[in-house]
Amino acid sequence: MKHLLTLLFIFSLVILPPALLADEGMWTFDNPPLKQWKERYNFVPPAGWLDKVRLASVRLNDGGSASFVSANGLIITNQHVASGQLSKMSTKEKDYVKDGFYAPTLADEVKATDLEANVLVSYEDVTAKVQAAASGEQKKAVMAEIEKDCTTKTHLKCEVISFYSGGEYWLYRFKKYTDLRIVFAPEEQISFFGGDYDNFTYPRYDLDITFLRAYENGKPASTPNFFRFSEKGAADGEFIVVPGNPGSTARLSTVAQLAYQRDVGNPLLEKTWKTRLSALEDYAKMGEEQHRQANPGIRSLRNSLKRLAGQEEGLLNPRQFGTKVAEEKDLRDKLAAKPELNKEYAPAWTDLEKAYSHLPEKAPRLAFSTISVARLGSIASQIVRYTEETAKPNDERYDEYRDNRLDSLKFSLLSKAPIYPAMEEAMLTAWLTKAKETLGANDPFIRAALGDAEVSEVVGRAVRETKLTDPAARKALLDGGKAAVAASTDPMVTLARRIEPVIRELRAWNEQNIASVETSAGERISKARFAVYGKTIPPDANFNLRLSYGRVKGYEEDTTLVPHRTTFFGLYDRALSFDEMPPFDLPQRYKDKKGKFDMSAALDFVYTADTIGGNSGSPVINAKAEFCGINFDSNIQKLSNKYWYVEEGEGGRAVGVHSQGILEALRHIYETNALVAELTAK
Amino acid sequence: MKHLLTLLFIFSLVILPPALLADEGMWTFDNPPLKQWKERYNFVPPAGWLDKVRLASVRLNDGGSASFVSANGLIITNQHVASGQLSKMSTKEKDYVKDGFYAPTLADEVKATDLEANVLVSYEDVTAKVQAAASGEQKKAVMAEIEKDCTTKTHLKCEVISFYSGGEYWLYRFKKYTDLRIVFAPEEQISFFGGDYDNFTYPRYDLDITFLRAYENGKPASTPNFFRFSEKGAADGEFIVVPGNPGSTARLSTVAQLAYQRDVGNPLLEKTWKTRLSALEDYAKMGEEQHRQANPGIRSLRNSLKRLAGQEEGLLNPRQFGTKVAEEKDLRDKLAAKPELNKEYAPAWTDLEKAYSHLPEKAPRLAFSTISVARLGSIASQIVRYTEETAKPNDERYDEYRDNRLDSLKFSLLSKAPIYPAMEEAMLTAWLTKAKETLGANDPFIRAALGDAEVSEVVGRAVRETKLTDPAARKALLDGGKAAVAASTDPMVTLARRIEPVIRELRAWNEQNIASVETSAGERISKARFAVYGKTIPPDANFNLRLSYGRVKGYEEDTTLVPHRTTFFGLYDRALSFDEMPPFDLPQRYKDKKGKFDMSAALDFVYTADTIGGNSGSPVINAKAEFCGINFDSNIQKLSNKYWYVEEGEGGRAVGVHSQGILEALRHIYETNALVAELTAK
Repeated sequence: MKHLLTLLFIFSLVILPPALLADEGMWTFDNPPLKQWKERYNFVPPAGWLDKVRLASVRLNDGGSASFVSANGLIITNQHVASGQLSKMSTKEKDYVKDGFYAPTLADEVKATDLEANVLVSYEDVTAKVQAAASGEQKKAVMAEIEKDCTTKTHLKCEVISFYSGGEYWLYRFKKYTDLRIVFAPEEQISFFGGDYDNFTYPRYDLDITFLRAYENGKPASTPNFFRFSEKGAADGEFIVVPGNPGSTARLSTVAQLAYQRDVGNPLLEKTWKTRLSALEDYAKMGEEQHRQANPGIRSLRNSLKRLAGQEEGLLNPRQFGTKVAEEKDLRDKLAAKPELNKEYAPAWTDLEKAYSHLPEKAPRLAFSTISVARLGSIASQIVRYTEETAKPNDERYDEYRDNRLDSLKFSLLSKAPIYPAMEEAMLTAWLTKAKETLGANDPFIRAALGDAEVSEVVGRAVRETKLTDPAARKALLDGGKAAVAASTDPMVTLARRIEPVIRELRAWNEQNIASVETSAGERISKARFAVYGKTIPPDANFNLRLSYGRVKGYEEDTTLVPHRTTFFGLYDRALSFDEMPPFDLPQRYKDKKGKFDMSAALDFVYTADTIGGNSGSPVINAKAEFCGINFDSNIQKLSNKYWYVEEGEGGRAVGVHSQGILEALRHIYETNALVAELTAK
Repeated sequence: MKHLLTLLFIFSLVILPPALLADEGMWTFDNPPLKQWKERYNFVPPAGWLDKVRLASVRLNDGGSASFVSANGLIITNQHVASGQLSKMSTKEKDYVKDGFYAPTLADEVKATDLEANVLVSYEDVTAKVQAAASGEQKKAVMAEIEKDCTTKTHLKCEVISFYSGGEYWLYRFKKYTDLRIVFAPEEQISFFGGDYDNFTYPRYDLDITFLRAYENGKPASTPNFFRFSEKGAADGEFIVVPGNPGSTARLSTVAQLAYQRDVGNPLLEKTWKTRLSALEDYAKMGEEQHRQANPGIRSLRNSLKRLAGQEEGLLNPRQFGTKVAEEKDLRDKLAAKPELNKEYAPAWTDLEKAYSHLPEKAPRLAFSTISVARLGSIASQIVRYTEETAKPNDERYDEYRDNRLDSLKFSLLSKAPIYPAMEEAMLTAWLTKAKETLGANDPFIRAALGDAEVSEVVGRAVRETKLTDPAARKALLDGGKAAVAASTDPMVTLARRIEPVIRELRAWNEQNIASVETSAGERISKARFAVYGKTIPPDANFNLRLSYGRVKGYEEDTTLVPHRTTFFGLYDRALSFDEMPPFDLPQRYKDKKGKFDMSAALDFVYTADTIGGNSGSPVINAKAEFCGINFDSNIQKLSNKYWYVEEGEGGRAVGVHSQGILEALRHIYETNALVAELTAK
């Protein structure tokens, strides 16, 4: 229907096509888009502005973003980011997800089960040191050394991170919080109003927020860098910045890589996610308590599948895919004009093409050879791998088992989060059944996992008899090391042990044939890009802190206008238009409060900032670094932005909860006076 | 974005694809879709049901539909159907369109300027009589005779109407009302909330209603057949019937005809409408009063252009156009299996192809050779033509000047509706300028209209000096006949006189080369269709009474659900989300009443019935023939339904104002107690 507009010249209020790539980019803090801010929005950040924004921004290890909103460690994130923790804290009797929660005093705040928060304290360019190493192995050793040295000196969490596919390496130093307590969460009915239907759509009417508090040494953390709440939020057209941790983009991928994703990678991913989703959905149908247990997984997988469908639709669009082909051609043509460089860098593309030609055959094995889709399977596999890796010298290990990562890893492995055996069994059974169907009974992974036994037999025994539900049993194995694991007769551990060699072999194949080519080719293509264009574009997202920006702005759809914000009136309209049929039903509290608060307050809003999964929970701040809202979604038009920025004129928008609506709800619907006082303290 | 859904199998609430052509059809009363009603909705109309529905249905000569909603002549239609009359009744001081109107007593009701209402009293198949005539000329003579005979006998308005492109002919007898008075109209701000943006979209929030009353001999007409208002309206999924007067469809057109529309006809139509629209828009910019004068024309042309763009997009869609190609092939293949018939009917398609091959060249002349785009030009041309035609025997005249049509024609020609000379001049100037630019200075029409003079000169004098603004001057010419017209020195009349021979020559060319082929070929193709399929589909729409039907039903868009109804909450949400920026502003009354009535009342709703322009104002009734709402729009998904029915699964929907919302607004926003009492009388 978009094309209709091209036939119509009768509107007086037509949105003009933007300059190319306006508002594009998830920028690193070492290379903020100062030029664009100045030119497009006449914004020059005052001294200290960027540091303050960085230090008030928070990354959560559950895969989302957050920010400090008071000097006493108060953090805001999305309910859907915190919902994993809320679910782990819940029992059949007390459901933090369904019913929400509010702690009027510090004493009432409840510790999240295994949440970790990171703040990027400082960073340093170590590209020269890493690239000086001759081989991939040596690079890893250099990186491990830098990290170890940093940890020893600073006692911070130190990570050397690759950007631009190895075109740059940076040492990031994080302050880490592991005592996070829940202050406030709304009912999931309202944080996820409209459910999977309204997910990735707009206009939307969700209060997707949760407040946490960071503690240090049993006391609220002191967080002098925080975002003050704005009572009125951001106006139509206003410049906004969204600091956060976008998870993953593939915008610098080559055409060969994208074609692989389109034709093999994404369809395979869809298959694996659907296998897991239908296992959880079947389980959830068994009863209310089963539904409660499976709910976070179902919600997350549905979200992933809907996003994946949008991404795949983008890749399947010849016009959009053609843009990538043209971009690559432009770079390679310009490179060809520099014969010296061309000779060195041009083979990178053909190397990648060649490498990827072997991948489709191997891909199903790489995707299905795992039991980490279930918690017990994941714990068992990680324990087996942990003990094997940590027996080696630090610089010879898999990346994720290097010394500086072990604290966070153990924090998660020893988590007391509840495990539901029946759900574990359902998931592992469905997974191995599909794996066997896909790979065949004689596949090495299937042979190792099942031998001649039936799936139900192996899984049933492993789940029934394992002791890994008890964190103490896991600790004993970790402490006992390789010997303890080798001696274990726990059937989940023996299952993990049996499949480990197959997994290692596949990982080695991938490392040698794909990953190492990607690194080598990626580095050369990045250097080619820098040589041709300069460092004009940010690196692909990798769940590290970035700056996105843009403006609050509605858009056109179906020949009409979609407003920049929604109001509580719209929430009631949508609920009542559907006769409150779930997922369009309202919590009782909202029925009681109907008409008893300012329903014209802004609830959600949209803006042009370049965001992606991982940006959930990012603050949306104005030029004064005030908190104007919290990012929680993108509309459907924007979903292919894993591969390219969806321009303003195409209607792609990020969606946030408006600060006005948050305050209105806290004051008049939830009456959380202490929380409001803390947020609005002068 | 629709395709996204095909990638998603994760919804539990997927709308199933309907059986082919479910709910399709604008059915004549002689062939109601009883089989479909029984099979799909288990509805068998009780005795008298269809007669009552027909006699309670009203056609308005302003191009819309309506219905009786009390026994005392009370009629409901759309504000946008009545707005032409409301505008004609308005002055600078009293603006019925902008401010609305309410007459609490009969004495307060105000006569509409020149509105005529028709009710279809009876009908008779005259196909055999007409088709027995040998030539097109003779057919016309037979039709004129039948009409004259009927009028003499019944004193009703009698018309012989062609269906199925001449496949059938029916004599329709109408009761006519010419004394119609305005009872209630809301502010245009609320009847057309969202303006041209929200036109043809949904969800929508408009109170597009106007009440009139039919009078006979100065007293409210007695109308025992009327639709009782339903307090709760139609529920989700409920069966509904929409009787009304769909204007024009081209579903039985051949591929050659559709290709012509797509490539030549529609683009040319767009050009002429845009010429007129921009003339009015420029005029409206001159001031508030000019805006008031031009508003109905602007609104109507924007509406037409938006609809045309949707239709053209449909024709340009290869998949949709391909359906028509396949349908035609199926009919011709099946016909080929009946050699006798094939020999007689098959040439019809090639005859049409040949005829249409000459049309593109002639089309610009046919489109631009007129001055009827301005009221004075139209009046002058009609007077010239009237006097010339009525001097001939009845059966030799142009159809529209046959005796039985003269009453209605004179009613409109002698209307006291105000004429705004400055607007007339602006329109005629823009039109003739574009005509000259398109046809060239030596074109016969341009020569006849302008000679060697400038457009401004000819138009300026004609508008300035004409006396045709006075209905008495028009009457004098009509009464004086050919001689009076020949003797007239009124420069608008002389302009019309000069161009009349050119127009007649073009009309003759069209009649001989296109229209006569269409009639002859259309009749043969219809006979072929009847022979192959039987009378299984209704004829194309022709602004006569039809039955559409379907059910109240939301749909999917952008991967989410669009509800079957909207509420007043949504009206406030949309207005406030746009900061009440026009056209999303609310009348003062609505600001004052915010929160003081039941905002959860249903305002608009959607249903699957097969409707098109002309159905505006049609009642939406339930199985008990109760009034559940009034049709006023279609959503954008449905716009190509001129050429094919847009199936339920594609999201095409008709949009109506809900009876619940009408009553809520009348009771609590407008407090029109007498009107409510009449509507809800037991």
